[in-house]
Amino acid sequence: MYRVYGTSASGNCHKVRMVLEALKLPYEWTEIDPGRGQTRTSDFLAMNPNGKVPVLEIEPGVHLPESNAILCYLADDTPLLPENRLQRARVMQWMFFEQYSHEPYIAVARYLHRFHPDPASQRALAATKLDGGYRALAVMEGHLAGEAFFAGGRFTIADIALYAYTHVAGEGGFELARFPAVAAWLARVEAQPGYVRMPE
Amino acid sequence: MYRVYGTSASGNCHKVRMVLEALKLPYEWTEIDPGRGQTRTSDFLAMNPNGKVPVLEIEPGVHLPESNAILCYLADDTPLLPENRLQRARVMQWMFFEQYSHEPYIAVARYLHRFHPDPASQRALAATKLDGGYRALAVMEGHLAGEAFFAGGRFTIADIALYAYTHVAGEGGFELARFPAVAAWLARVEAQPGYVRMPE
Repeated sequence: MYRVYGTSASGNCHKVRMVLEALKLPYEWTEIDPGRGQTRTSDFLAMNPNGKVPVLEIEPGVHLPESNAILCYLADDTPLLPENRLQRARVMQWMFFEQYSHEPYIAVARYLHRFHPDPASQRALAATKLDGGYRALAVMEGHLAGEAFFAGGRFTIADIALYAYTHVAGEGGFELARFPAVAAWLARVEAQPGYVRMPE
Repeated sequence: MYRVYGTSASGNCHKVRMVLEALKLPYEWTEIDPGRGQTRTSDFLAMNPNGKVPVLEIEPGVHLPESNAILCYLADDTPLLPENRLQRARVMQWMFFEQYSHEPYIAVARYLHRFHPDPASQRALAATKLDGGYRALAVMEGHLAGEAFFAGGRFTIADIALYAYTHVAGEGGFELARFPAVAAWLARVEAQPGYVRMPE
């Protein structure tokens, strides 16, 4: 059975939970608290030398890090990852967009606001993330003005990857009400079979 | 024929050139200068609303952005992307590592040192990229101490993605001599058929 080493409040980890639930795959979850050094132990670094959650244990001794690589692995040969070459590349396009142009702003602003031990000390740094985050949301809004989902005309792992931190962007100080097409898409994702909320 | 809209000195763009050359695919290259606003024109934004190079024109009107998504597209069904499900996921693992944990430090430090209009003003910012860049190089060194390539036991697009900015990390102030396994791997990449140097 799959085992996820993850932090429930992390969007990157929640992506993995969403895919496992959407595909009805059985799994166990081992909660990891990076704030208490649990990604820096020798056991954890043996699973992921980069010291980050999530990690998917495929079988004992076989560990896959990087949230979006885990999504590709789990969705392989399922409706969540199109077989068509160009459509599969579009899924990858939006997943790399998520990790490079979205997560470093929207997830980091949320972390600084909500999870940093001293959020007041981080206000100036958090403010520097707003422009980049709003740029990413504007790119998403432009795409979703004409499309129901990000790739292949249907719900894929690109939607799951982008949903994870977008739906909690408000916690980082972003006003999602400015992006009506994004808001409508969030609701479409939440209506998918097997949708699971991020644990509180 | 493929057309690349790219900046020759950009590692992200050079990846695309490396894959096209390795696969002996014919292509034309349109040089784009982001410093002169050429990624902000309406024509460019119609190809990539995120305003970044590279963009691959697959056919007129069909444009694919995101360097690593382009690599996946071009390498599909070639020896540069393994068919085995886990090995393909390992390629993705290292490509997401590259965009999240490597490029934002190593490529950005190089940009600030070498391409910023006023590098002296950027020294403090460039210095903040060193720790993250050295962390990424240490993770690569650990992997390459026991493996010739990053995934699947052979040369893949994961190697091309990581080579692009690693081989010019010295331009960002990184001492590659500290990482002998990385240096040996750079030489292995340079010995591959179809290897092409980054244009000066």
